[in-house]
Amino acid sequence: MKTITVEPLTATEFAPYGNVIEISKDAQSFAINAGTTQRFHDLAHVTVSGKNARPIISMARAQPFHFPIKLTMLERHPDGSQAFIPVTPTRFLVVVAKDKNGTPFNPRAFLAGPGQGINYFQNTWHGVLSALDVVTDFIIVDRAGDGENLQIHEISEPYEIVL
Amino acid sequence: MKTITVEPLTATEFAPYGNVIEISKDAQSFAINAGTTQRFHDLAHVTVSGKNARPIISMARAQPFHFPIKLTMLERHPDGSQAFIPVTPTRFLVVVAKDKNGTPFNPRAFLAGPGQGINYFQNTWHGVLSALDVVTDFIIVDRAGDGENLQIHEISEPYEIVL
Repeated sequence: MKTITVEPLTATEFAPYGNVIEISKDAQSFAINAGTTQRFHDLAHVTVSGKNARPIISMARAQPFHFPIKLTMLERHPDGSQAFIPVTPTRFLVVVAKDKNGTPFNPRAFLAGPGQGINYFQNTWHGVLSALDVVTDFIIVDRAGDGENLQIHEISEPYEIVL
Repeated sequence: MKTITVEPLTATEFAPYGNVIEISKDAQSFAINAGTTQRFHDLAHVTVSGKNARPIISMARAQPFHFPIKLTMLERHPDGSQAFIPVTPTRFLVVVAKDKNGTPFNPRAFLAGPGQGINYFQNTWHGVLSALDVVTDFIIVDRAGDGENLQIHEISEPYEIVL
């Protein structure tokens, strides 16, 4: 079986696929509320398209996966970005892939550390939400609206994701 | 000085002002990802208006306030909803008010428990982000765009918020 080795999640490496949502020294930030709060501004763009499209906030409670993790499918949402931000202080797994003529290729796996969330760009191939170690609660920012906003690609020769 | 006594944050009491973002048995939920994840769907609506308006995700690191807390001003955002969800597992203070002819009245204070976030409806009067007890990191979902999206009301006779 082909293997994918997990990489650390950094804004630079993740840039082709989406935003990393985190408090970092590199982020544009400014003081608000008479200096009591520092705002790290515009870390992720929420985009939606299609009929009756609107951005929504949801939550998810995810059971953990355990390495090695089999990658058998990827999905994407043609009509909206999708952000996942853990409110449980723990790591989670982020799998993404580039697209070639409607088919994902070259999947990569990133390990998001505690304090990191991600936002997949609209129409970007990604794996299912993958908590690790513990049951993890996530904030989701994505789209509601008409139409089918999900494409699924079953991988004929599954990968094994290893740490 | 007039006092405001903090109330527990519940979806019912908060309904005139915004959404409570939490995993609750009452929320519409369904299984995703082959049953490994439960999605609590559409807990908060993100709305934006005005020229070049777009929803964005930011973060904030807030220094804590300590009771009794003086309420000297309220603000509102005419062109967008605004959500605050702590990623630090702790409580925080939420102050809101109704509007009468462009002026806030009858301010109320809610204590959000760990696991609760809130989304202020567009153009709803609210207090500044108020962490309690510890330095708290928040996810913010609000608006970027042109124009002045902030109205501030200084309170001539400040309130004291007590637990």
